[in-house]
Amino acid sequence: MVKILSEKLNIINKKNGSIFPILKSTSEFFSSFGEVYISSLDSGVTRAWKKHKSLVQYFVVPIGEVKFVFLVDEKKGKNRFKEIIIGESNYSFIKVPSNVWYGFSNICSNTSYVVNVIDLPHSEGNSESRDYKDNPLEGYSW
Amino acid sequence: MVKILSEKLNIINKKNGSIFPILKSTSEFFSSFGEVYISSLDSGVTRAWKKHKSLVQYFVVPIGEVKFVFLVDEKKGKNRFKEIIIGESNYSFIKVPSNVWYGFSNICSNTSYVVNVIDLPHSEGNSESRDYKDNPLEGYSW
Repeated sequence: MVKILSEKLNIINKKNGSIFPILKSTSEFFSSFGEVYISSLDSGVTRAWKKHKSLVQYFVVPIGEVKFVFLVDEKKGKNRFKEIIIGESNYSFIKVPSNVWYGFSNICSNTSYVVNVIDLPHSEGNSESRDYKDNPLEGYSW
Repeated sequence: MVKILSEKLNIINKKNGSIFPILKSTSEFFSSFGEVYISSLDSGVTRAWKKHKSLVQYFVVPIGEVKFVFLVDEKKGKNRFKEIIIGESNYSFIKVPSNVWYGFSNICSNTSYVVNVIDLPHSEGNSESRDYKDNPLEGYSW
């Protein structure tokens, strides 16, 4: 079964604002830096399914609330999925190994913002996707 | 005079959300990765002045609008400052060399979010700060 790491990060509240730590090079969860970007997602929107062949992903959600779902054990008729909700009220990272089908859905009433740090820069042909509506994964309905 | 780099980044608009590129390891503006974090800043709030002795900073503002100010030429009685406004309506990065006094102010009516990518992880004693109210820099008033 695939192991999806997720651990709490400590928001530092300051006068008139906060610091949201994301990732340090000295973290045990850091390997190498390829790219960092942010995806915004309107309320209620789902993006699924995706899989990256070689890159490792590291997600945080400083604004909003997002449900991530991972296919952690792939067996015909017995697929197993792991759900993890992160966001403002559970400020945590999720680290996703390569070659895992995943998807995510904005479950709050406002736009959510997902920060993604990947260990290699994006390149064409490095990822697969299948539409969760037309081509669902057996055993999970969004 | 200190050179502060700032260039436009292209937001990719998708159905029901957007992608905000921040930094890639293949960018000519990337040197090394130390840490990435986000600072939120309430409307109208100013944080100034700060200076980092050895680290290089790379800022983007995906949400809100922030005015950055840099002391680019320090001469008694003739300090020169550079102002750069970045945010949702001017989605750009700013790259700041080490040893530059800088400050920033949230000039929009909502909370702004500043993403900061630095080339070394933060450490104590690596930065200086002086309160812009009690100890202003000659030639600039916030």
